[in-house]
Amino acid sequence: MREVAVVGVGMTKFGRSEKTILEMFSEAALEAIADSNLQVKDIQALFFGTVYGGFAEGQMNMASFAAHALGAHNIPAVRYEGACATASVAIREAFIWVASGFYDIVLAGGSERTLVMDTSYSTRLYEMGSHHAYECPTGITFPGVFALMANLYASKYGIAPEKLKEQMALVAIKNHHNAMFNPKAQFHKEITLEDVYNSPMVASPLQLYDCCPFTDGAAAVVLAPAEMARKLVAKPIRIAGIGQASAGPLYAQKDITRIKARELAAKQAYDMAGLTPKDIDVVELHDCFTIAEIVASECLGLFDFGEASAAVARGETQLKGRIPINPSGGLKAKGHPIGATGAAQVYEIVKQLRGEAGERQVEGAKVGLTDTLGGDLATVANIILRK
Amino acid sequence: MREVAVVGVGMTKFGRSEKTILEMFSEAALEAIADSNLQVKDIQALFFGTVYGGFAEGQMNMASFAAHALGAHNIPAVRYEGACATASVAIREAFIWVASGFYDIVLAGGSERTLVMDTSYSTRLYEMGSHHAYECPTGITFPGVFALMANLYASKYGIAPEKLKEQMALVAIKNHHNAMFNPKAQFHKEITLEDVYNSPMVASPLQLYDCCPFTDGAAAVVLAPAEMARKLVAKPIRIAGIGQASAGPLYAQKDITRIKARELAAKQAYDMAGLTPKDIDVVELHDCFTIAEIVASECLGLFDFGEASAAVARGETQLKGRIPINPSGGLKAKGHPIGATGAAQVYEIVKQLRGEAGERQVEGAKVGLTDTLGGDLATVANIILRK
Repeated sequence: MREVAVVGVGMTKFGRSEKTILEMFSEAALEAIADSNLQVKDIQALFFGTVYGGFAEGQMNMASFAAHALGAHNIPAVRYEGACATASVAIREAFIWVASGFYDIVLAGGSERTLVMDTSYSTRLYEMGSHHAYECPTGITFPGVFALMANLYASKYGIAPEKLKEQMALVAIKNHHNAMFNPKAQFHKEITLEDVYNSPMVASPLQLYDCCPFTDGAAAVVLAPAEMARKLVAKPIRIAGIGQASAGPLYAQKDITRIKARELAAKQAYDMAGLTPKDIDVVELHDCFTIAEIVASECLGLFDFGEASAAVARGETQLKGRIPINPSGGLKAKGHPIGATGAAQVYEIVKQLRGEAGERQVEGAKVGLTDTLGGDLATVANIILRK
Repeated sequence: MREVAVVGVGMTKFGRSEKTILEMFSEAALEAIADSNLQVKDIQALFFGTVYGGFAEGQMNMASFAAHALGAHNIPAVRYEGACATASVAIREAFIWVASGFYDIVLAGGSERTLVMDTSYSTRLYEMGSHHAYECPTGITFPGVFALMANLYASKYGIAPEKLKEQMALVAIKNHHNAMFNPKAQFHKEITLEDVYNSPMVASPLQLYDCCPFTDGAAAVVLAPAEMARKLVAKPIRIAGIGQASAGPLYAQKDITRIKARELAAKQAYDMAGLTPKDIDVVELHDCFTIAEIVASECLGLFDFGEASAAVARGETQLKGRIPINPSGGLKAKGHPIGATGAAQVYEIVKQLRGEAGERQVEGAKVGLTDTLGGDLATVANIILRK
């Protein structure tokens, strides 16, 4: 198989948008294509993710329309859906078509419009990422699942609940701080411990500021064979490893503080890259809730199990810390347009590895890791990128 | 790239089912795995299609749950959606993972549950396969689009409308006849010209019997490298060519009697296989309406443009005709469980090329072609299979 590189990235400003899913995607895609020094006509196939487009806009079969909206007429265009992991799954699929030699230049990414729907409708939609027969009837939603995770984490590792609450809040504070330096982030607002503690309780112990927001947005990447990439752009970023695994319904999980799909997916990516967690310089991971960031960083091998929450408190995951996590602001503050999130993670890592991340630059970053989680632990995809 | 073969196929009996989407898929998948002389634990990745699962069952992120339901724990599982072309798209994606050498044994297919929804709800859902901004507001639905196609076809080629109505009816009669020999078909009922003419008008000139039904069902295929396939099963069927193209919204089509996405997709498949339409012995194509079969057979190069409807009347597409089309009964009589249809087409062609199609066997068939159309001309995928 051929080595594959990211030659261009694009994303919309995240937040509330008046644009349609396809208008947002076109904006991100055209930015990615221009960033690649390519034109639309060079794109040979489209790998497009959206989760709730059918519900938000009454539109199915959207990949074909996405290609057309972009002016990429008649290319093969495929829609992917894997809940919040959607765009990472699309990029992984795009990877193999280039690695195999079948295509040279492909476009992948995702787009989602959530704020057009009200919160109660969105809540019901998001619950559909859980298992409809075994989980939804219990009334549990994603905040509930991650609240259980937080409580189990505290109990399992002997961390006082108040201590863990503070450590979780520090995740939110860090990610809001990082987003201050990201012009495309949804939130540009520093928050304090008091802000978190004074925010409404969502599912104990998770308060409002422990939860990521609803977001509109799109992100896209252009892939090419590494050899071609070096001729196209000054700083191609290689895809060193990919991994994906599924874990089925929540009841099938033996321990929700150790997400099996993530451990398997990350191992695939590390093995393929010939790297270990120690080699990773910067990480964009799935902080849909503050506890999710803590648990993810352990499953990815960045900290020992039960150690990550204390490491957050020591500042190890800050921009200038030992292993910076979510320099973009993460889902928590950059925003979480579900079907676009994985592509936005790749966008950030590519900017970081190119040294183009401005005030949020992680100094000397050479290897980066993305991590997206779909559903309540069901689907995880990881991508390792390197200079 | 490696040569890839289908080593096993499975499908449920099409029609009305009391089973869930995942129960139906498991049934088809387990049949396909057994047919491959493999076990569930041998499956390395799942490529799963469903279109309206979110609406029919309130379930998203279904691929992970499909893998789990099957007992294929923790493998990568991806959901595809490309309207009616969904399963063909999934199989094409599965192909590249095996062709590239990344995986050896993968499972692909689809499942759909439509009869749990009432007709008015289904009609609104299906319309979502059209472009929601440019087409849905006009009130046109798929029967309307294909009625326009029929009227244009008659006018363009100077065929008297009554003549075309009869030729279209003969498509329905043929496909209902073929389905008599297919134990898994939804309908086992011969129909006559009078039945067609006496059926309710849907969108002139299309009457009820010109239209395919709503169907519940699932179908699945197992792929393996050709070299491994020969050791696994007595009659592996090679994937000789694949093609896919998208065409965007209806308004972008210059001539709806010549479906550009299909002409492009079929050319890709023919070129890859090193074959021409003359080499095809048996075809499963997208007869969502009787006129759709006529037009598809021309776009696939099996007849000159404007000639297919007369060829139907001469019996050339019957089981013992020059180029048998839809020996399974097609969407028209085998049924059309949207996200499963492309996999059911591959099922039929594999059975035909193995010589296992019983009373509907096309004698001496060595090369077969599948064709699925998603939306009103937006997405087409083709697969060429050979002994």
